[in-house]
Amino acid sequence: MSQPDLNKVKTYLLGLQQSIAGALEQEEDTLKFTIDAWTREQGGGGRSCILQNGTTFESAGINFSHVFGSGLPASATAHRPELAGRSFQAMGVSLVIHPNNPYVPTSHANVRFFIAEKPGEEPVWWFGGGYDLTPYYAFEEDVIHWHQTAKQACAPFGADVYARYKKWCDEYFHLKHRNEPRGVGGLFFDDLNEWGFDKSFGFMQSVGDHYLKAYIPIVQKRKDIAYGERERDFQLYRRGRYVEFNLVYDRGTLFGLQSGGRTESILMSMPPLVKWRYNWQPEAGTPEAELYEKYLIKREW
Amino acid sequence: MSQPDLNKVKTYLLGLQQSIAGALEQEEDTLKFTIDAWTREQGGGGRSCILQNGTTFESAGINFSHVFGSGLPASATAHRPELAGRSFQAMGVSLVIHPNNPYVPTSHANVRFFIAEKPGEEPVWWFGGGYDLTPYYAFEEDVIHWHQTAKQACAPFGADVYARYKKWCDEYFHLKHRNEPRGVGGLFFDDLNEWGFDKSFGFMQSVGDHYLKAYIPIVQKRKDIAYGERERDFQLYRRGRYVEFNLVYDRGTLFGLQSGGRTESILMSMPPLVKWRYNWQPEAGTPEAELYEKYLIKREW
Repeated sequence: MSQPDLNKVKTYLLGLQQSIAGALEQEEDTLKFTIDAWTREQGGGGRSCILQNGTTFESAGINFSHVFGSGLPASATAHRPELAGRSFQAMGVSLVIHPNNPYVPTSHANVRFFIAEKPGEEPVWWFGGGYDLTPYYAFEEDVIHWHQTAKQACAPFGADVYARYKKWCDEYFHLKHRNEPRGVGGLFFDDLNEWGFDKSFGFMQSVGDHYLKAYIPIVQKRKDIAYGERERDFQLYRRGRYVEFNLVYDRGTLFGLQSGGRTESILMSMPPLVKWRYNWQPEAGTPEAELYEKYLIKREW
Repeated sequence: MSQPDLNKVKTYLLGLQQSIAGALEQEEDTLKFTIDAWTREQGGGGRSCILQNGTTFESAGINFSHVFGSGLPASATAHRPELAGRSFQAMGVSLVIHPNNPYVPTSHANVRFFIAEKPGEEPVWWFGGGYDLTPYYAFEEDVIHWHQTAKQACAPFGADVYARYKKWCDEYFHLKHRNEPRGVGGLFFDDLNEWGFDKSFGFMQSVGDHYLKAYIPIVQKRKDIAYGERERDFQLYRRGRYVEFNLVYDRGTLFGLQSGGRTESILMSMPPLVKWRYNWQPEAGTPEAELYEKYLIKREW
């Protein structure tokens, strides 16, 4: 079985961060990402790329981190007691994009690598990641394109890969307290090592590389659609669901906040402006109702 | 030891909800609370009083609930295994007020009663509750008034009661991931039964009754102070901390969301409009910096 090569993973991740930042800047008039390098007291650090108040993107955050420690925290090993006490390294790229235009969906992507080591024993490692889309006013052709691109990312790795990780994504990005999906899904995978290092790493790269192919065409198609107060209001209201998911359920967010991660890098996923209102429901027959009826349901694309 | 009287508690709680709603309406031009009664599938229900887009209050939610079930969920008995499998009843009033004017603080209050029963055994019951204040632009005299009123609420029950529950409040309303208090605190108590039913119930009533005495004078003094974009912006930014606390840490919120509570009543604590921005810090010497330096610190009032 091929051995894990951390340098190759790190090089890929830093390159991915840069290429995504570059592609998003192409959709802006003049604004560029600012870059914050940071270190973590307990070991490691990261590089956060942030863009705020752009012409296309109200906020875009792309975070690279590489953290390590001498003993895995208990919360990380509850389901894998065999890893307790091992030294670990985790590296990944995580991004959340909140566009200005309510016709452009919010998107999220993450790819990550984890390794737990112990002298004299084989290292335990795995890959995880995925990407998912959260539209406000959705276009069927966009969602089909998003999922077809996800399918292409998976195709070289096995006939059932897309279906399996599409399902996992639907299950993961679900707001239990509202019995509502966060959006229209995409891919989610974790604990991937069964293919050996080279193929697993290849799959993570395929997911990373397909994100821009999935998202940028949607941005380009929809970013200049005219909208008014009504659409903006609905977008801000729906962003509340994004906050609810990330703060109540998202494992990465909660693990980061509770384990001394860099708060500002973790919470760059928060939307810049959000509304809540009590017991609101869209009126039947409106474009807002269509989101719930046609898109926030179990559906194959 | 005096026996618990659930009807007396319920009558008090419903009256408290009504008197708080009435007092808040006095600060509005014409707007009144709307009332939603709801039932809970697994047993019980509640009554939510909601006011939105008022002249003084951007949102105010006062929720009464009385829920019961045949077996306490595991999550509620993790620390008290002796209660597992008992039938239970929980009733309480919980409120969160988000004013328009950034010079008027957000406030929260909660009083609650819990009883777990088993045929042939003594019931296990306790009271909990408290109130806390979250200013944006704080006035020292207001915070002193708030805490002095809390002290008065506690005084008849013992010399050390205020100090104990003030400390518990500081510890509870703390955002660990920012190492920052949510606000300037107040009172927090839980598991209170050591005084017997009558005195414990009397204390809960005293806390409930002192909330308006603590909050309304502050509202009246500050609600007409002129403010602009800058103050509004800071208020919306700071409201993000309120969301973070409630969704990441607040036991009542998380228990409610995870146990099939009524989502819209639980999340009426969410501010109507909220901002996040990456890595923002107030400039030294500004009124915004003063909040962090003088108020969001460990302090006695």
